[in-house]
Amino acid sequence: MRDCEITAVEVRDVRFPTSRNLAGSDAMNEAPDYSAAYVILETDNDLRGYGMTFTIGRGTEIVVAAIHALAPIVKGRRLGDIAADQRGFWRSLTGDSHLRWLGPEKGIVHLATAALVNAVWDLWARAEGKPLWKLVVDMTPEQLVGCIDFRYMTDVLTQEEAVDLLARGQAGKAAREAEISRSGFPAYTTSVGWLGFSDEEVRERCRVAIAQGWTHLKMKVGASLEDDVRRATMIREEIGAERFLMMDANQVWEVAEAVSAIRRLGEFDPWWIEEPTSPDDILGHARIAREVAPIRIATGEHSHNRTMFKQLMQAGGIQVCQLDSCRLGGVNEVLAVLLLAARFDVPVCPHAGGIGLSEYVQHLSVIDYVAISGELQDRVIEYVDELHEHFAAPVQISDGRYVVPETPGYSIEMLPESLEEYAFPEGAAWAGAGVPAR
Amino acid sequence: MRDCEITAVEVRDVRFPTSRNLAGSDAMNEAPDYSAAYVILETDNDLRGYGMTFTIGRGTEIVVAAIHALAPIVKGRRLGDIAADQRGFWRSLTGDSHLRWLGPEKGIVHLATAALVNAVWDLWARAEGKPLWKLVVDMTPEQLVGCIDFRYMTDVLTQEEAVDLLARGQAGKAAREAEISRSGFPAYTTSVGWLGFSDEEVRERCRVAIAQGWTHLKMKVGASLEDDVRRATMIREEIGAERFLMMDANQVWEVAEAVSAIRRLGEFDPWWIEEPTSPDDILGHARIAREVAPIRIATGEHSHNRTMFKQLMQAGGIQVCQLDSCRLGGVNEVLAVLLLAARFDVPVCPHAGGIGLSEYVQHLSVIDYVAISGELQDRVIEYVDELHEHFAAPVQISDGRYVVPETPGYSIEMLPESLEEYAFPEGAAWAGAGVPAR
Repeated sequence: MRDCEITAVEVRDVRFPTSRNLAGSDAMNEAPDYSAAYVILETDNDLRGYGMTFTIGRGTEIVVAAIHALAPIVKGRRLGDIAADQRGFWRSLTGDSHLRWLGPEKGIVHLATAALVNAVWDLWARAEGKPLWKLVVDMTPEQLVGCIDFRYMTDVLTQEEAVDLLARGQAGKAAREAEISRSGFPAYTTSVGWLGFSDEEVRERCRVAIAQGWTHLKMKVGASLEDDVRRATMIREEIGAERFLMMDANQVWEVAEAVSAIRRLGEFDPWWIEEPTSPDDILGHARIAREVAPIRIATGEHSHNRTMFKQLMQAGGIQVCQLDSCRLGGVNEVLAVLLLAARFDVPVCPHAGGIGLSEYVQHLSVIDYVAISGELQDRVIEYVDELHEHFAAPVQISDGRYVVPETPGYSIEMLPESLEEYAFPEGAAWAGAGVPAR
Repeated sequence: MRDCEITAVEVRDVRFPTSRNLAGSDAMNEAPDYSAAYVILETDNDLRGYGMTFTIGRGTEIVVAAIHALAPIVKGRRLGDIAADQRGFWRSLTGDSHLRWLGPEKGIVHLATAALVNAVWDLWARAEGKPLWKLVVDMTPEQLVGCIDFRYMTDVLTQEEAVDLLARGQAGKAAREAEISRSGFPAYTTSVGWLGFSDEEVRERCRVAIAQGWTHLKMKVGASLEDDVRRATMIREEIGAERFLMMDANQVWEVAEAVSAIRRLGEFDPWWIEEPTSPDDILGHARIAREVAPIRIATGEHSHNRTMFKQLMQAGGIQVCQLDSCRLGGVNEVLAVLLLAARFDVPVCPHAGGIGLSEYVQHLSVIDYVAISGELQDRVIEYVDELHEHFAAPVQISDGRYVVPETPGYSIEMLPESLEEYAFPEGAAWAGAGVPAR
């Protein structure tokens, strides 16, 4: 590894005016402007590390402030020291006693942690000359486990049990790596069914998606059940019975309301129902899952830490784990959740879309398959065909699958011209537009 | 009510260098500097509203940034309009779709919500010429319930059930109000057992507390079990068997570790054990409570919203509800949790200490007793004898009880000279000191 010292932490507020076309609209998020609190780690050699956390517009400046508050914990450290004690490094960020009060391990301070932690992992992978996923799958079980803070996990998974779990998968690792590098990782598209789209646009997008080879498609539901039924009927007409249709309610239902709505939507054979109610409501998810079985409940994009995922799995409230690469505290905590999911035999289908999330999560799913769960069954990565052009090494999709990335790092470096044009509020994309109204 | 328009939202970063004497030190928070993100609502008449959220030092500037992001939702509104639709007002703050992404309803954005919401309630109470508690207890059941967002609560408590619950308590309200105004609200002290204190200081503080009439005392535990046993032995020697001793672990234990530690500490007859593990671990709390019964588990100062409290109560993981006036999204959500606690028959003993929390929660406990639970049994309010001198109408303690406040408002207005001296970083208290090191 090429060691270096992290000499500076730059932070940018970058926002894309996606609300102008209503892509991304759902029952909870009417008009997001996909945004990033973006981090550049400068070093004392020519290496840089890039990281970001995903936001949806207003308030990105608060996350930027939180990254500035955490930055002194990162600045001045040597990469080699961090790499040698990843667990200690992560705990130094999440365990800062003053900043911990503002979470703990949740909300803005945890989103900020993710941006910094992910930037450090990007830097580390670049220093090793490997894509992030390869850096991780090349670790021994002990090395991988050494990146994880097991605090609050040990009642379901100890460090020793995690090492055993990983050791059992060592034999097939090389074959799985070769296979996935050849075939790519299965994906699904969320581009067809945003709530803001007209019926005509939904039909047209279904046809395009089918032509592109998509077999798994997701629609948004939850604004009104009548409307959901009408739209689901239309989408099923377009995609047929053999393709997989997922439905995403974005947290809008009460628990009992979710049960009755899901039973009604069951006629459209949903492959999963996503975020039926409050992301904090573990017991609510468990009750919904029990009462609508065998329809599977998917959640996780708003589950803020490993303790929440642990309980969702303990309670049976999650049949599809949609961890978020930025909501969790970066790669270290993602690895913890991947291990929990393997322990509970819950398939991981990471949350993506927005900006940067696809770039991130392609690595995480490859790690899960090659080094942790060893399974592809029921695993698909979310994909939205938007905003990838802003990245130096954007995701590539081929025939409905993610092509496994080969560029060193975590694939999150944005182009300098994009950083400039979409800088908020001074970039050209915002000039004259002002801050979008509530 | 004297109506007015909210014409400006001022925000201050105010920090007190409490880490210099190690008051406030516990197993998780070694050296807090008690702080406030403090709000002043200006209006078009001579009324002002004051609110704050409590922090412990670094990062207060992030909460200030979050309050600025939320402020446009408050600025320009008329108090009368807010008062007429408190539920809608609250939802407009917590439901802002862009800012909601940064929570939802948790962490910094929710702490900021609390500061603003509490300031609006302070303004409202002043406009009515009543202390906050009196404003609330004078409401009809329908009016009180109209302040609450029942989203994610209806599986355990609907609006109609809440009205019924409150209606049942209407008969005795006047008598309870007269009684509590005469006798004051029972309290307990946390001033005796901070981890940073020497043995001699702990003994001395026990003696002082007994002389002041305290019957309920709390110590910090969790740094090392041996040390906890030694200190508990010492404190029991000082306070005797007849007084009540509570123990606070501040989240440091794993679930199984908590069970064995609490069993060991059981010999000291703890009245409750507080925050045994992660505040997010509802199922963990439930298991601990089952396995150490009849010792009671107290938690809540880090429970970030009504959905978390709902589940703690559903699961049996909470025998003492220590809601926090700033962690929850202000008075509206506190009322929701008070109703949940009454529904599940869990006594509420609010979190206080820090700065401003005692000033706030005295109102909340009076509301709970007079208008909601109707019970005093097992209800005590936390009290720490510190920093009250900075308030225009500070709490008054008499013989181990809070004297019920009579000044209009929510008691949280700070003295102008305190705001100036402790302004961070420019105030005299910080001049030359610089930002405290991590």
